[in-house]
Amino acid sequence: QRGERETVEDLLWELVEQRQLYAVLRELEPFELARLAELLGDETFGEFLAELDPSDAADLLERLSSQEAADVLEAMAPDDAADVFARLDPDEARQILVEMEPLEAQELQELLSYPPETAGGRMTPSYVALLPDVRVDQAIAALRKVAAEVETIYYAYVVDEANHLLGVVSMRDLVLSPPYRTVGEIMTRDIVKVRATADQEEAARLLVEEGLLAIPVVDDEDRLLGIITVDDVADILEREVTEDIERLGGSQPLEVPYTRATPFYLWRRRIGWLLLLFVAEMYTGTVLRHFEQELEEAIALAFFVPLLIGTGGNAGSQVVTTLVRAMAVEGIGIRDFFRIFPKEFIAGLLAGVVMGTAGFLRAEILGVDPAISLTVGVALFCIVLWAVTVATLLPLLLRRLGIDPAVVSSPFIATLVDGTGLVIYFNVARIILHLHS
Amino acid sequence: QRGERETVEDLLWELVEQRQLYAVLRELEPFELARLAELLGDETFGEFLAELDPSDAADLLERLSSQEAADVLEAMAPDDAADVFARLDPDEARQILVEMEPLEAQELQELLSYPPETAGGRMTPSYVALLPDVRVDQAIAALRKVAAEVETIYYAYVVDEANHLLGVVSMRDLVLSPPYRTVGEIMTRDIVKVRATADQEEAARLLVEEGLLAIPVVDDEDRLLGIITVDDVADILEREVTEDIERLGGSQPLEVPYTRATPFYLWRRRIGWLLLLFVAEMYTGTVLRHFEQELEEAIALAFFVPLLIGTGGNAGSQVVTTLVRAMAVEGIGIRDFFRIFPKEFIAGLLAGVVMGTAGFLRAEILGVDPAISLTVGVALFCIVLWAVTVATLLPLLLRRLGIDPAVVSSPFIATLVDGTGLVIYFNVARIILHLHS
Repeated sequence: QRGERETVEDLLWELVEQRQLYAVLRELEPFELARLAELLGDETFGEFLAELDPSDAADLLERLSSQEAADVLEAMAPDDAADVFARLDPDEARQILVEMEPLEAQELQELLSYPPETAGGRMTPSYVALLPDVRVDQAIAALRKVAAEVETIYYAYVVDEANHLLGVVSMRDLVLSPPYRTVGEIMTRDIVKVRATADQEEAARLLVEEGLLAIPVVDDEDRLLGIITVDDVADILEREVTEDIERLGGSQPLEVPYTRATPFYLWRRRIGWLLLLFVAEMYTGTVLRHFEQELEEAIALAFFVPLLIGTGGNAGSQVVTTLVRAMAVEGIGIRDFFRIFPKEFIAGLLAGVVMGTAGFLRAEILGVDPAISLTVGVALFCIVLWAVTVATLLPLLLRRLGIDPAVVSSPFIATLVDGTGLVIYFNVARIILHLHS
Repeated sequence: QRGERETVEDLLWELVEQRQLYAVLRELEPFELARLAELLGDETFGEFLAELDPSDAADLLERLSSQEAADVLEAMAPDDAADVFARLDPDEARQILVEMEPLEAQELQELLSYPPETAGGRMTPSYVALLPDVRVDQAIAALRKVAAEVETIYYAYVVDEANHLLGVVSMRDLVLSPPYRTVGEIMTRDIVKVRATADQEEAARLLVEEGLLAIPVVDDEDRLLGIITVDDVADILEREVTEDIERLGGSQPLEVPYTRATPFYLWRRRIGWLLLLFVAEMYTGTVLRHFEQELEEAIALAFFVPLLIGTGGNAGSQVVTTLVRAMAVEGIGIRDFFRIFPKEFIAGLLAGVVMGTAGFLRAEILGVDPAISLTVGVALFCIVLWAVTVATLLPLLLRRLGIDPAVVSSPFIATLVDGTGLVIYFNVARIILHLHS
């Protein structure tokens, strides 16, 4: 029996690594799933559920009986259990809550009182708290006793009778201090903490910046509610990055995993930006109609429209993604203008010369009138330089106005450059081809 | 004196938080910088340098005398010191090495023998190693003694006489075990480790996935060389994300911080992709010349070219960024084809209907022939659906071929859709306007 269990466990961990666990488990019949939970035991089964996306885990849990589901939730780490519980069908959730031990049920409901994206929604109440007059050797003994149940034994938080946070002692402090000192004497009072209502990203950033293994979460009156541990950070940051990348692609970030998104949901997240960009791009039609006469006089000009505006968009996109990221990571702002702008402008000049030459050659190969080739080359040079300038100024300006520069997606900058690029193109054409003259 | 030092320290930490430390320090004269280093002490000054980008820190270090620089480097954590040292001017570096203590100099050179992007380049040799016959109480005492010098005391690595890695004991294990047991008895043998030549991202991923506080780095013969601690993870992952984002924007990732990149360097990283996309976009010219007659017959068709291909590019970009990210995070592959494709196709159909209607209305507002309005609407519907299809299939196909789907940047998909979108547009026009008929 024990051998069988271990084989199953190994297999499931393999699936976790392949990210195929849910794909396999969701194919099981309810009775098969129940048998699996029984074989593994509630605790191990709960560990596997914690590896899944919470909505997937909730999906599986709903296939068990309320009693079984309650047992599994009780065996899980409270923060993981809360994440899953929040995604259950409300009716199902109520029934499961009834089946749970009153204390565990209460703990779960307290965790659920904070929205999932906040520090309170992410924290776990499995921490160690000590009163300040506990001695170092007593503290170590206490940590030993609860080691199996708490999330980390490397920090113990020092609180008063009303659970107000006074300080923190690390396992390192305890091990290094004489056993007869009290934790109140050796604790660090200058403590890094986060409000339960703060964004979970703030907690993650503080954890990383201060090099902590856990950060305490407090309420408005500085009472300790829970902790967020370093193993949550990767999760939080991964979500944040996904949001940034989706924004860069020109859509609203998805709030559910991609695999669970319905076509209708995907459409809803995207159509707004798509329409907005469409409206913004509409003026290209007006611009082209404005130059209708030039187009009729030299229809070959139309051949190069996609190439010119495409290249302008690409050049702008390159700058904007690099710059927006550097603004986030390296803290660049408008005060760095005189360091950033000349740099991008020179790089843009170089790129403009290369692309202008390439454009001229392309037009010659296509066999159009040399004057048109010259027009394409000169226009391309101007458009690249213009795109780079806009892509440099816009994020800096937005930051100055207090708007997150991450809204400047690649599609956004491409749209902006498309119409203005056409104006440049036809004006260059007018001058070089002496149209209307 | 002590008060002054603390004020300066507070001020500098404030600058660290504002990401302005380097901006301020680089304005100091060498003698002012030397005075600052003296006031703070080598250790604290070194801590501030470690907060900077290594190239910035190297820049500052070069302004100190070799002796001063050597003292600061010795006081820094070896892995941080190595990062900075690697960016020093070679002549300067040689002189500083001469001034260092032989042992510290040797340690530094060993760390530098691995490229900076590898696990070996990122590790620190400040770990605790124990022989297996050390008793638990002796181990705790040993950890106490070295606590101030090592990177983490929460893990001790168990090695044989030749430094081969045998196992690991955590502080938790030590605290929970009877004092008379040996570390060899209580250690975990199934140890997660990484080769020194492996990519640092692999180390970071393992640390996160396994929920570890540190991961040991070994050579080909499984000898322990150093450890990478959890506080390096955020750094490594941040770099990785920056690379992904820069690739999405259609340029090669920068290998130096943006603020240190020269215009020429920026140009070099971008011009390759810009030219490649240009060449790929060149066929739009050929396509348009192919439809020259249609254009001459109905010049108004040209008005909508940027709008149509722009919208196609945007729709494709939305899909590709979401999908590529989901492939990285949620492990989606070609085997999920029948779950992904219908979803995107339906979402694309919905978007196509909306955008087609918008296109028709736009053309009507511009006051062109109703037949052309109809052409624009139908073509836009087809182009959106086509763009979504390409953007869904391409990343899955690339993954199947073993190519990283992250190469499909927004500009790449936009370029791909531009020309094919034109073909769709003019064929729709032929049918609806009965051109050539």
